[in-house]
This record gives sequence, structure tokens and C-alpha cells, in this order.
Amino acid sequence: MRNLAAVALLLALTAAAPPKKLTPTDAVNAAPAGAWRTIPAEDLLVMTLDGGARVIIQLAPAFAPVHVANIRKFAAANYWQGAAVYRVQDNYVAQWGINEAKRALSAGAVAKPPAEYVRPARGLAFTPLGSPDPYAKSVGFSRGWPVALYRNGSASLTHCYGTVGVGRDLHPDTGTGGELYAAIGHAPRQLDRNIAIVGRVISGIEQLSALPRGSEAMGFYKEGSVAKAITGIALASAMPAAQRPSFQYLDTASPSFARYLRIRKNRDDDFYRVAAGGADLCNVPVPVRPTPGR
Amino acid sequence: MRNLAAVALLLALTAAAPPKKLTPTDAVNAAPAGAWRTIPAEDLLVMTLDGGARVIIQLAPAFAPVHVANIRKFAAANYWQGAAVYRVQDNYVAQWGINEAKRALSAGAVAKPPAEYVRPARGLAFTPLGSPDPYAKSVGFSRGWPVALYRNGSASLTHCYGTVGVGRDLHPDTGTGGELYAAIGHAPRQLDRNIAIVGRVISGIEQLSALPRGSEAMGFYKEGSVAKAITGIALASAMPAAQRPSFQYLDTASPSFARYLRIRKNRDDDFYRVAAGGADLCNVPVPVRPTPGR
Repeated sequence: MRNLAAVALLLALTAAAPPKKLTPTDAVNAAPAGAWRTIPAEDLLVMTLDGGARVIIQLAPAFAPVHVANIRKFAAANYWQGAAVYRVQDNYVAQWGINEAKRALSAGAVAKPPAEYVRPARGLAFTPLGSPDPYAKSVGFSRGWPVALYRNGSASLTHCYGTVGVGRDLHPDTGTGGELYAAIGHAPRQLDRNIAIVGRVISGIEQLSALPRGSEAMGFYKEGSVAKAITGIALASAMPAAQRPSFQYLDTASPSFARYLRIRKNRDDDFYRVAAGGADLCNVPVPVRPTPGR
Repeated sequence: MRNLAAVALLLALTAAAPPKKLTPTDAVNAAPAGAWRTIPAEDLLVMTLDGGARVIIQLAPAFAPVHVANIRKFAAANYWQGAAVYRVQDNYVAQWGINEAKRALSAGAVAKPPAEYVRPARGLAFTPLGSPDPYAKSVGFSRGWPVALYRNGSASLTHCYGTVGVGRDLHPDTGTGGELYAAIGHAPRQLDRNIAIVGRVISGIEQLSALPRGSEAMGFYKEGSVAKAITGIALASAMPAAQRPSFQYLDTASPSFARYLRIRKNRDDDFYRVAAGGADLCNVPVPVRPTPGR
């Protein structure tokens, strides 16, 4: 069987051996402990699917504080009891939750959250991607998140593979957060600034992306059937310590990330013939790992 | 259940009703018969999976003529007998075929094809996308294909969702075409100019993208197991007329495509609040449909 990506070669360690060209993974593996940031447990949403597989989502309270507060309240109040993945549309989204019209809102949750689609760019840490973007004035990274800056001074998170957003009806409805989706195909960037992004899947996206596609329009499942039942959704901070996951992301302001970015934009390891000299924002996923030693 | 995409609204047909904003699908549905081009049957590769589902691939002889000629010979000679999908890597590729090292090359096939990764841009029809691209000087469409133009006068097909390429070992190997992959995640554009693109899946990509991911490194299946057996791979031109599929693509030089492109770049139908004002090449999939009346 042939490998598409670079194969680790055992180079003879002689004086004549050329230096090995680094892969993005090499750069990530070489990052020191101090370049990693632990994600707070209250920002980790743990969704357990029928059969026990977990999907772990990092929440983004700095971008959608009201929606994220709702999601935390829903998790605490067991709002999602009986929830399911009920839509899987190929090259677009997997969507899950509970029918908001049929479930009473949890105490303290906001019924009509504001349109948290953008926030001011001012005050946002920003590491530029350094490649042009079709959707924004500039794109890059802010505290571990892919972000876009617009000409009017606003900023947004961007839809990349695994991005989690809030299902809604037609504008100006914004959704409560009771129905969520994850992008499972090519980044649907046209949704940026049009929907509340509340986080991203950092572990277990394949539990959603490999589900059978729904047979109805837009990938919905037939009434009365679902792609997968959800047996629990909880914040890591509310879980017993022994079951609580912990993850870290590579600090996007660190020299290690800068090196990773440079290599992603200029792949020249043994598999490659031509280095691209640039990259699409969503082709530079922010490295995430389980916290070592836990 | 809430819908992410625009919902068809029944607007009251009164004098006061505002004009309905068009969706990309509206533009495609409005294209006249003359804007559609029928794909030649010798350019359609029909892969049948265990269970009977079909994956249909449009071949690209104008970009990788030697590899495509090999693929046609393999199909005619039943080279792929016993083939399987043996690699499914999340957000990257599904890969299939037969171990080239263990199967004698079909008569007339080329053992070491040239690096058909680029071709001269000169002579290529070209409709520009009109948005910046991180990987190329300019990107757009040529006779139904997404293409990139580079500063040195070369052009390539681009890796988008569903793009089919030739698995290979390390450069300068190019692969024979006996092992193929399809992109099933965010477009891996860094592979452009580094691998032979031979076509794209135009029907049935979900038969590959929803397969369980392989458990081994890079999504490979464990030795002795496969994601899915392949029961047949044939050119449509070699199939009995009654079983032969037929597809058309929207002429990318037509006014209908120009309108579709403009709407994709400026979604302003009822779901949207802000029109993007641009699009990523791979977010403008070339419309394809079964040939009407067949």
C-alpha cells in the first residue's frame, strides 16, 4: 500500500546524509511544554454518544458569551436529555440537540440571545496567517482560535473543519444553543458573520463525520429516526476528576506555532516536489493534545 | 428541528411582496438546457462497492493523459479484481485500489508515468473566480474543472472535496493509477502540483466519506481488513446502455455559471445577514446533474 503523506525514512546517519526536512508534526512534537496552554475545564463540553464514544468540544466564551452561558446552563440542567444527532449532510454539517420548541428553557438561560456573530477586533491578540483570504481583510489566530478581521473593525471566529455553531431559523433568530452543528466537510466560510460560532470539536470529530448521511433534504433524518442517540452532555468541570478529560492547545503566539505555520505553508519534506508558499486558514489547524501525564 | 440553510418561503404574491433573493440552487435550476455539457462516457469511471452502491468519477484526460490512459486500461483488463478501500483518514482522504507491487501491469499500461502534476496554462479556457487564493496566482474554472494558474505559466487542477488523485510513494515516483484516493475533508490544496489529479467524484462521494475511519496511522486499515470491498470498476462506455450512467456539468463559461458564481460569492437570501463578497475556489463546486430524460 502506498502512502500519500510523507513516510518516516530511516536515514543512514553518515556524514553525507542530508538534513531531514521537517514536517508540521515534527514542529509540533518539538514544542516545549511552555508553549502549550491547558484549556479550562469549564470550556470543555463532553458529549457521549450511544455506545460510549465521546465528542469533546472546546467552547469559545470570548466570542459568544451569551450562547456559551446558555450551553453551560443546558449541560448543568440536563436540558439535552433524549437528544440525538438528527442531521448529517455530506460535505457540510452534522447537527444535534433537542427540538427547542418542545423543551422548556433551563432556568437562567436566555431565550433570544443577541447576534454574537462578530466582536470588536480591538483588544484581540492576533497572529496573522500571512496568506490572502477570500472572505476577510485578514485572517490568523487568536489564543488558539482561527479568526478573521473585517474592514469595519469587527472580528469573527471562522468556520473550519470541526467548528461548532448554533443552529437557527431565518435571520434575525440566533438560536439558543440547544441545537448545535459541527462542520464535517470543506470549510463553509460563507456562514462566517451569519451564525454564532461557540466552539470546535477537539476530539472525536470522526464520531460525527463518519455517521451515515441523512436521506431527507439537507441531510435530515426521517421523522422518528436519528443518526445517533446522545446519552449525555456535560461540562468537564462538572465531571468526577477521574473521568474528566484535559486538553492543551499550542499557543498561537509562540515561536513553536510560528515554526509550525511556516512549515505548513512550505511543505518540502520528502513527499513534496513543490512547496505551496502559502496556506488556507483552515489548512493550518491549531495543534491540540491531551494534557500529558493525566 | 431548525434548518441551517435557507428555507423555501411561500411568499404571498401581492404587489407589495419583495422580490425573492436567489439561492445558488435557484440559479442552477434556471440554467437552460444549452448551458449543460454531457460528459463523454469514456470519461466516466463507475466503481461498484460491496452491497451495490456506486461511486462515479469523471476523469480528466486533458490534465493527466498518461495516468487516465492507464486507468482506462486497468478498467478494461479487470486489473482491480479483488480491490478494496483500504484507507480512510478523517478530514483527508479515502484511498482504494490494488497493491501495485503484487499485480502485473495491464498490457499497454505505463509502469512509470510522467509527473502530470501541471500542464501549460496556455491554451486553457479560463473563467476567473475573482477572489484571492493562498496557493496560486489566480484560480478559476476551465471546462467544468477548478484550476489554478501559477506565476511560471503552468496550470493545475486543484484538490477540492471529492477530487481524485493517484496514490504514490515518495517523489519522483508518480504512481500508475492502480491506487487512487478521493479528498473527503477540507481541501488539501498543499497537494496541488505534487500529485497527479485524474478526476473527481461526481456521484456517491458519501459512500466513501461516511466509511469508518481506519485505526492505523494515516487512516490505514489493519493488514487483512478493509473499509469496503470493491466489486467492480468499469468505464461507462464499456457498460450495457441500460446500466450506463450519464451526467452533465454546467458550462463554466456560460452566463448561467457566471450568475451561480456571483450568488455563491454574495449569499443574501433570507438566511443570511452579511454577504461574504467572495468565495474560496472549493466553495464553488461546479454543478453536475444526471442527464435529463435518460
